[in-house]
Amino acid sequence: MTLSRTATTFAPPVMEARRWLDGVEFAADRPLINVSQAAPVDPPPAPLRQAIADTALNMAEAHLYGPDLGLPALRAEVAASVSSTYNGTVSADQVAITSGCNQAFCATMVSLCGEGDEVILPTPWYFNHKMWLDMSGVKTVPLACGEGMLPDPAQAEALITNRTKALVLVSPNNPCGVEYPAALIAQFRDLARKHGLPLVIDETYRDFHSRTGAPHDLFEDPEWADTVIQLYSFSKAYRLTGHRVGAMVASPERLAEAEKFIDTVTICPNQLAQHAALWGMQNLGDWLAGERLEILDRRAAIEEGFAVLAAQGWQLLGCGAYFAYVEHPFDIASDQLAKNMVKDIGVLALPGTMFMPDGDAEGRKQLRIAFANVDRAGIAALFDRLATLADLVPGQASA
Amino acid sequence: MTLSRTATTFAPPVMEARRWLDGVEFAADRPLINVSQAAPVDPPPAPLRQAIADTALNMAEAHLYGPDLGLPALRAEVAASVSSTYNGTVSADQVAITSGCNQAFCATMVSLCGEGDEVILPTPWYFNHKMWLDMSGVKTVPLACGEGMLPDPAQAEALITNRTKALVLVSPNNPCGVEYPAALIAQFRDLARKHGLPLVIDETYRDFHSRTGAPHDLFEDPEWADTVIQLYSFSKAYRLTGHRVGAMVASPERLAEAEKFIDTVTICPNQLAQHAALWGMQNLGDWLAGERLEILDRRAAIEEGFAVLAAQGWQLLGCGAYFAYVEHPFDIASDQLAKNMVKDIGVLALPGTMFMPDGDAEGRKQLRIAFANVDRAGIAALFDRLATLADLVPGQASA
Repeated sequence: MTLSRTATTFAPPVMEARRWLDGVEFAADRPLINVSQAAPVDPPPAPLRQAIADTALNMAEAHLYGPDLGLPALRAEVAASVSSTYNGTVSADQVAITSGCNQAFCATMVSLCGEGDEVILPTPWYFNHKMWLDMSGVKTVPLACGEGMLPDPAQAEALITNRTKALVLVSPNNPCGVEYPAALIAQFRDLARKHGLPLVIDETYRDFHSRTGAPHDLFEDPEWADTVIQLYSFSKAYRLTGHRVGAMVASPERLAEAEKFIDTVTICPNQLAQHAALWGMQNLGDWLAGERLEILDRRAAIEEGFAVLAAQGWQLLGCGAYFAYVEHPFDIASDQLAKNMVKDIGVLALPGTMFMPDGDAEGRKQLRIAFANVDRAGIAALFDRLATLADLVPGQASA
Repeated sequence: MTLSRTATTFAPPVMEARRWLDGVEFAADRPLINVSQAAPVDPPPAPLRQAIADTALNMAEAHLYGPDLGLPALRAEVAASVSSTYNGTVSADQVAITSGCNQAFCATMVSLCGEGDEVILPTPWYFNHKMWLDMSGVKTVPLACGEGMLPDPAQAEALITNRTKALVLVSPNNPCGVEYPAALIAQFRDLARKHGLPLVIDETYRDFHSRTGAPHDLFEDPEWADTVIQLYSFSKAYRLTGHRVGAMVASPERLAEAEKFIDTVTICPNQLAQHAALWGMQNLGDWLAGERLEILDRRAAIEEGFAVLAAQGWQLLGCGAYFAYVEHPFDIASDQLAKNMVKDIGVLALPGTMFMPDGDAEGRKQLRIAFANVDRAGIAALFDRLATLADLVPGQASA
C-alpha cells in the first residue's frame, strides 16, 4: 500500500497556527500581536486598486485565458527590471509569470526532479519548500546553517550525490531574515556549476534588502542561465498576496518544462493580477522605496529590542526583510511555547520546529517573528509582552 | 538517471496548436474560425465586471491572503447550489475553492495516489488529466469508450488492480461532448463503492447540459461523500477563464489532504476571482440560463451541419456542451489534417491524437470541434469550409 503524495507531508503550518487562536479572547486594549505570517495586512495603495478596477471594467482580455507563461508585457518588464537591478542581461523569454512564488518553486522542482531525487535545502527551511519536495517524491537533504545562520558551500558539497538535482537558497531568508552575502551566493553558484547542478535562488523578499543595488552578481555572468534559476513574488512589494502572482527567471528551455506544470495545474496566472503587478512595477517605485525604509526601521526596532531582551537570555540569530529568527531562553519546546504565547501574552509567532526536520533540537529553541506588519509602537508592545514571559513560563508544564 | 517529472509528459496541446497559426495570414473577409479552445472569448457581462471593480476598490481583504480552501461565503454558496440542483445535502465544509478546475483535479489526485498507482480514465481523455497523472508518477489506465462514446462499467471493472486509486468521469465530456446518462454515472458510483474507490466526476460543463435539473443523482445518496468527488469550474459559466477559479466537492477529510497541495502550490485561490464567482452565482442565474440556450442552439446547428456532411463521410461521434467530436473521412492522420486545415480552410481544431494514448488508431481519425464561441453564421461558414476539404485533402501528402 503506497501512501498518497499528500500523506507523505504535514499539514500547512500557517493554517495550524491560525487554529491556535480558536476560542482565545483578546481584550480590546490588548489585541493579538500577530507575527506569524509573512504578508502585508493592508491592501495595495489606492492608485493600484483604482488601476485594477479600471482594468476589470475596460480590458476584456484581462478576464480571459492568457499565455501559460504570463503576460508578455509583464515578462518584459520583469526582464528589464532584473537586468537593470542586477547589472545583467535577462530577456523576456527568460521570464515566466506564475501563480505566486510558491508555484514558481513547484514548477522549478518538477522540471528538475523525478521520484527519489535529492535537493539540498539549508535549514531552517521555508516549510512549503519542504512540503513540495515531500509531495513530489524528492528527498530533502538538510544543510544546517552555521555561524550567522549562513549555509556553508563546503558542507553543501559534501552532501552532493548522484541523485542531487538542485541547490536551493532563499535570500533574504525565510525564516531567518538573513541577507546572504553576494560572495557566498557566488560561491554556491560556482559549486552548482562545478557539479552541473542548477542553483535555485528564491528572492521573494528582495525588495526589502538593506543594501541598495544588486544583492548579488549572478546576473552579471553572461552564462547565468546555464545554472541560475531565480524566483520572485509580487505579493510583498505591492501588497498583492491575495492575487497570487510571482515569477521565475531561467533559461527558455527550463521555462518550457515548467510550462507543462503551469498549464496542467492552473493553465495561466490570473490576468488581472498580472496587470496589477505590471502597473505596480511601472508606477509604484517611489512608494515601494518608502515601504522598504519603513520595514528597515522596524527591523532596527527589532534589533534594539532583542539587544535589551538578551539580558533574559534571548538571542537574535538572524534579522532582515520581514523576519527575526530568535532563540528563546526557556526549558520548553518552541511549539508548546508558541501555543502558550497566544494565551499568555497575546502574541502569535511560529515555532522553529515548523522550519526544521522532525525532532531537530535547534528548532525546539527557536521562534520566527514576522515583524513587517507591526509598527514601532506595536514592536514596543511586543517586547513588553515578551519580557513578561520569563515570569510565566517556569510555572508552565514543559512540553 | 531519472527523468524529471515534466520530462515524463508532453507539451501543452493548446499551446502547440496556437503555434500552428504562426506565420499564417488570414484574409480580412475570411478570418480564422478558431474551434480549438474550450473557453469563452467574450469578457464577463458588464455588471459582473462592475462588481469586480467595486470589490477591488472597496474591499481590502479581497487583495490579501484568504483561507487555503477558499472564501467561506463562496464555499457555502456552492454547497447550497449543489444541494439544490442535485436534490442532495452538501455542506460548506464539503466544498473547497481551487485555482481553476485543473487544480481541483491535481489536488484530488495527489490526495489519492502515490508513485506507481493507477487511475482509470476513459478515452478520449482531457489531455491535462493525462499530463497530471504522468507528472505525478501515476499510470493512466485507458478505458476506451464504446457505442455513443460512453465508457462501460464492466470494462472498467476488468481494469481494476490493487494499484487502482480512482475512477474518473468527465460529463458533459471533454472532448466528446457526450452527456453521460444518470444511470451510467450511478453504475460507475456503485462500481467504485464496491471496490472502495473514489469516483471523481469532473462537471466543468454542467451549466450547459441539455437536461434541466440534476444531471445525475449521486448527491441524493446520503453517503455520497464516501465515494464521490465532484469537480467544477466557474470559468465557463461566468466567463472567468482568466481569473482561475474552480471547486472541489468531497469529504472534509479529503479536502484536508487536498489543502496540503493547494497551500503549497498556490497558497489560496485568487480572492477577487472568488468574489467574482460568488457575485455571478448570486446575480447571473437568468443570464446564464440564456447563455445555456444559446449554446444549445449552436449545438443544434452543429448537429444539422454534420448531418449534411455525413454524405462526405464525416461522422458525428458525440455532441454536447462546448464540443463536437467527429470522425473525418480522409486518409490522413488527424494531427496532420488539423495543421493543414489552418492553412487550407482557416479553421483551427484539435486532432483526436491529442486526446488519445500515443499511437492510438482511433485518434488519427478524429477531431474535436469546440463550437461554443461560434454563432450560427460562423457555424454555417465552418461547414462551408469543411465541405471544401474533400477537394483539398487528396492532393496533400499523407502524414
